[in-house]
Amino acid sequence: MMSAAVLDRPLSIGVKQVPIPEPKPDEALIQVYCIGICGSDVHYYEHGRIGRYEVKEPLILGHELAGVVVKTGEKVTNVAVGDRVAVEPGVTCGRCSYCKSGRYNLCPDVVFMATPPVDGAWAEYVAVRSDFLFRLPDEMSFEEGALLEPLSVGLHAVRRGRIRPEDRVFVLGLGPIGLLAIEAAKMSGASQVYGSDVVEYRRNLALQMGASGVINPLEEDVTDRLYELTGGQGIDLIIETSGNAGAISDSIGYVNRGGRIVFVGLPTRDAIPLDIGALVDAELDVFGVFRYANTYPAAIQMLQNKDSRIRDIITHRFSLDQIEEAVELARTQKDTSVKVMIYPHPTA
Amino acid sequence: MMSAAVLDRPLSIGVKQVPIPEPKPDEALIQVYCIGICGSDVHYYEHGRIGRYEVKEPLILGHELAGVVVKTGEKVTNVAVGDRVAVEPGVTCGRCSYCKSGRYNLCPDVVFMATPPVDGAWAEYVAVRSDFLFRLPDEMSFEEGALLEPLSVGLHAVRRGRIRPEDRVFVLGLGPIGLLAIEAAKMSGASQVYGSDVVEYRRNLALQMGASGVINPLEEDVTDRLYELTGGQGIDLIIETSGNAGAISDSIGYVNRGGRIVFVGLPTRDAIPLDIGALVDAELDVFGVFRYANTYPAAIQMLQNKDSRIRDIITHRFSLDQIEEAVELARTQKDTSVKVMIYPHPTA
Amino acid sequence: MMSAAVLDRPLSIGVKQVPIPEPKPDEALIQVYCIGICGSDVHYYEHGRIGRYEVKEPLILGHELAGVVVKTGEKVTNVAVGDRVAVEPGVTCGRCSYCKSGRYNLCPDVVFMATPPVDGAWAEYVAVRSDFLFRLPDEMSFEEGALLEPLSVGLHAVRRGRIRPEDRVFVLGLGPIGLLAIEAAKMSGASQVYGSDVVEYRRNLALQMGASGVINPLEEDVTDRLYELTGGQGIDLIIETSGNAGAISDSIGYVNRGGRIVFVGLPTRDAIPLDIGALVDAELDVFGVFRYANTYPAAIQMLQNKDSRIRDIITHRFSLDQIEEAVELARTQKDTSVKVMIYPHPTA
Amino acid sequence: MMSAAVLDRPLSIGVKQVPIPEPKPDEALIQVYCIGICGSDVHYYEHGRIGRYEVKEPLILGHELAGVVVKTGEKVTNVAVGDRVAVEPGVTCGRCSYCKSGRYNLCPDVVFMATPPVDGAWAEYVAVRSDFLFRLPDEMSFEEGALLEPLSVGLHAVRRGRIRPEDRVFVLGLGPIGLLAIEAAKMSGASQVYGSDVVEYRRNLALQMGASGVINPLEEDVTDRLYELTGGQGIDLIIETSGNAGAISDSIGYVNRGGRIVFVGLPTRDAIPLDIGALVDAELDVFGVFRYANTYPAAIQMLQNKDSRIRDIITHRFSLDQIEEAVELARTQKDTSVKVMIYPHPTA
Repeated sequence: MMSAAVLDRPLSIGVKQVPIPEPKPDEALIQVYCIGICGSDVHYYEHGRIGRYEVKEPLILGHELAGVVVKTGEKVTNVAVGDRVAVEPGVTCGRCSYCKSGRYNLCPDVVFMATPPVDGAWAEYVAVRSDFLFRLPDEMSFEEGALLEPLSVGLHAVRRGRIRPEDRVFVLGLGPIGLLAIEAAKMSGASQVYGSDVVEYRRNLALQMGASGVINPLEEDVTDRLYELTGGQGIDLIIETSGNAGAISDSIGYVNRGGRIVFVGLPTRDAIPLDIGALVDAELDVFGVFRYANTYPAAIQMLQNKDSRIRDIITHRFSLDQIEEAVELARTQKDTSVKVMIYPHPTA
Repeated sequence: MMSAAVLDRPLSIGVKQVPIPEPKPDEALIQVYCIGICGSDVHYYEHGRIGRYEVKEPLILGHELAGVVVKTGEKVTNVAVGDRVAVEPGVTCGRCSYCKSGRYNLCPDVVFMATPPVDGAWAEYVAVRSDFLFRLPDEMSFEEGALLEPLSVGLHAVRRGRIRPEDRVFVLGLGPIGLLAIEAAKMSGASQVYGSDVVEYRRNLALQMGASGVINPLEEDVTDRLYELTGGQGIDLIIETSGNAGAISDSIGYVNRGGRIVFVGLPTRDAIPLDIGALVDAELDVFGVFRYANTYPAAIQMLQNKDSRIRDIITHRFSLDQIEEAVELARTQKDTSVKVMIYPHPTA
Repeated sequence: MMSAAVLDRPLSIGVKQVPIPEPKPDEALIQVYCIGICGSDVHYYEHGRIGRYEVKEPLILGHELAGVVVKTGEKVTNVAVGDRVAVEPGVTCGRCSYCKSGRYNLCPDVVFMATPPVDGAWAEYVAVRSDFLFRLPDEMSFEEGALLEPLSVGLHAVRRGRIRPEDRVFVLGLGPIGLLAIEAAKMSGASQVYGSDVVEYRRNLALQMGASGVINPLEEDVTDRLYELTGGQGIDLIIETSGNAGAISDSIGYVNRGGRIVFVGLPTRDAIPLDIGALVDAELDVFGVFRYANTYPAAIQMLQNKDSRIRDIITHRFSLDQIEEAVELARTQKDTSVKVMIYPHPTA
Repeated sequence: MMSAAVLDRPLSIGVKQVPIPEPKPDEALIQVYCIGICGSDVHYYEHGRIGRYEVKEPLILGHELAGVVVKTGEKVTNVAVGDRVAVEPGVTCGRCSYCKSGRYNLCPDVVFMATPPVDGAWAEYVAVRSDFLFRLPDEMSFEEGALLEPLSVGLHAVRRGRIRPEDRVFVLGLGPIGLLAIEAAKMSGASQVYGSDVVEYRRNLALQMGASGVINPLEEDVTDRLYELTGGQGIDLIIETSGNAGAISDSIGYVNRGGRIVFVGLPTRDAIPLDIGALVDAELDVFGVFRYANTYPAAIQMLQNKDSRIRDIITHRFSLDQIEEAVELARTQKDTSVKVMIYPHPTA
């Protein structure tokens, strides 16, 4: 048996003893060293559902993790017991047209951790199909390994936006995804990356992580500030991560003619007013982003040999026993927390 | 002196005698054989302005034309007197970053016919920089040459939408641009191209031009019909040409996950409600289209050796003297006219 | 038990009784109605090896097939007993970085029919993983279904060559792959497609299938003829399928500046002299082609609703009992045969 | 009158007084502060020709320059007297299909400095069409401005090779182009970039500029070393800049399946043996590179806000009066010189 944080119903979570999963022939058992709390975890915790996904049975949340291989199925060859690994949390079918054409994030049969009814990994152990395990280089920490998951969203976003190193990039929303989108843009060579958020703490964190400038949209004229920051050159690529309806509407006006906008943040409203006439006249590209694909090996390679600041987004650390305190903090203190991490393995 | 149709003020147009233009060293003088009436011409005729472009001085409209070279400037080498040519009506600077990177349709210094204060070509003659003249193959008519302009919009739209021959394509709005987008899709190899319009005449024309099926959005459930028409496979690429707010909003729901939407039609309202959550969740691509670039040689090559039906969209033909009747017809009889053509050269 | 054509050693092939394969849970059993003889089959028959692949045990050849589902494993949902299907003959792992990024043809763990030691399908039945089965539309014949395999190579070639409908295309070598590359180019919208071959019969077949012109490289100056055929416009895209060293070397000189060359044909020599200076000066793109990926659904969709001539390449038809005669014909009569088909199912 | 270095015939060069050019209406006169010696300059100096370009009249060489605007034609608006600028040395027509589609480096009517019979800029002043002048940020030196020209070749090479930040890159040949290709790869986010050269001095310079490892192909097994350096992951992208026949031939074997090779270096031999079978089997992409397009604004943007080491490639500096000494050094001391710079303006 092992400890796992089980969500029984909204706002009711606690550590229980559940069976240690037995890896199938093509799976490995991972001892979880470090696992993040994602906005979606908090949302399930608070509301018991996201869109069409509803928590009907007790559920283990959590899907941003790294750990150590402690057991392998008989067919596993790419990792061995003792390997330090990051876990990509969505296991895809490999056989549908989306999977076969390289967009496996759109696989209709994906089994994604912490999406009801699939359990996640706020637990001591988790079993994962081995092709979704990626060995961490010696110099990469478990925390960086766990952060590969939200970093993957940022990396997928800048890839979808066909980022070029010369692009002037503007990231709206400086939560974990926004901050890691800044990191992904910088890893892709971009030297001018700007950010906006209403929370001062997050703007400062963006500057600390290498943003070239930040904007408070509540107090500053965004268009004027972008003009000023870019010396009149304007923005070539926008990454919208806030999901805020106003930010989404306004983004069309922030980008140069022929520019690109990537929508990552999920708005709470069904329909957002968008100036399609401006989109047509300026011949913009707009790209939606749903999760990510083919990011883990790339992100590991990109982080290697670089002084990455991605761990700067971790603001709080808790043991698995403190799960309720941790998730409550993530739920209620959004202005001072960014990424909250859980450490199910005592000595991690 | 030559005859030209001059718009003095809204709803007031008449043929006047104006000087025959003198071609500059890099220009050729074109005797206009055939020139279309575009929706933008009608809009200037009716309202005297489109957005920020206002008719302040008497203006010659018209920009969809083919004719014969009758005089060449001393530096002109690509065409000769007697050549039958199509005219690309926007002369770009060739020196800005948009021009140099292949997106010359976004050139801020473009001089575009029939866009105030630049005169168009509802006239006997027009002078054009020679690199925007394209020789017509013997088997291509002047009418096809003039239609290369609206066809270019359709071609640019399917290119922007990264059309693949296997795509199931859905074109919303079956005016000239929509019908020619169908043609462009078919020329690009697409075998399943569907269209929708509220006007029966236009739906029938789409079928005649090779559409695989048409939908009346007022009387049919578009989603159900698309499912039925595609055998449940759904739509991969949408070309929205109607500019109708409802069609624009709905288009998000008509396309498969991972699909692409191209917005060509200019809506009259500033902001259209769009389901950004669905765009993100389905990871769609959305592309604006503004005019076109690098289409004329390609379209000529694509039309060659094919049985093209593009002339089927011409519903009415007038001489230049009948310009008022022609433009009034185009303005008032949208349900029975598609493309109205003017023939300034008597024997054409 | 079932009949199967077994190659014991080079030039020794005969029909034997072997067990009918039992489909695994994710496989279906296919009754083979129609299966082609590929150049690789002939090569194994004649030489017992291709490069690093050697026939060490008795082997069943054949991998271009269509048939009917007669039994399904318990997990199979995409096809049902009685379905007419084409078979994609390479089963990939779905889990390596090549598979996950959409280039599954480069999967190092692919299990490809008729590549030693994997048996092919010159037999009455074959078991195939169901995601490599594709239902044929009612109007598509088994022969067209079987030809989807070589057509896939042609389609992959024109895709790799980033074909545009306006491209002037030149296909070197007019065997099955070359002829089907012409078809793939035409399905992709290309209207000017030329071919060359030393064999008159094949040149005539190319014309019959829609080539705009053909060249006999032994008797004509290829460069002069291409200039003449294209009206001086030259060739934008070359598809080299002959594998002939001279053709490969010469191809660099046949294409316009900025053009693209796709090498499909495998030469017998290790090193071919190539004018790299010309490749650099003209800034060419060169693409290798190894098999194909994601072609079957696209090819079925592209063939649908079109008058395809692909069956014209079938020159001979034999029953399974006549396998030795069939493969000997394919081996020895290359000037008068193109595609030889085997019909293991008596009533097909 | 002004001083200019005039090549009269091979190996005969000297400073003469020639008229200061008068800028045309769309040109600006540039006082040259800093200009490099390129391999092509040395080749013209030594042999009097490169391929089809022959020095028939006395010629001024030099095309890698930065300086200050001292006079502007009446139509010039993008630069003003006193501006510090880099000069892109090839003036294109802006009107041919190559120019219009964004590949202006293939313009057949380009007027390129120091390519007979067009004079270059080893002189005090040069007149340049203003759209090929790019203002330098305050923090960018004239030397960096002049190096934008060879850096452009490196940048165009990595762009043509569709570099991704996660690529493991291998640059063959560590002359100025190879070293600046390393810089371009690193500016594009690549963190693992390796180089090879037979000259120790150049290998050390590559390491100093940030290469992750270097190889001496005369003393080491390149394949083994690449395996070792990449931890068995292999090379995804090769940039061949040496022009050495052996290096070109071998490059096919150095890259992973599905990888990309960019040929930049011009070989002296007409035909280089290439293993086309391997290129086909591994489904490689091969791209030629001829000069560059749309690189200057991007390179300026990419260098900005970064600690660039590109000036490290400058090994020698001379005044214009010392031109003979300078070019002789560049010609004869290739093992200890990389980039030799001329300073026509005394106080620079």
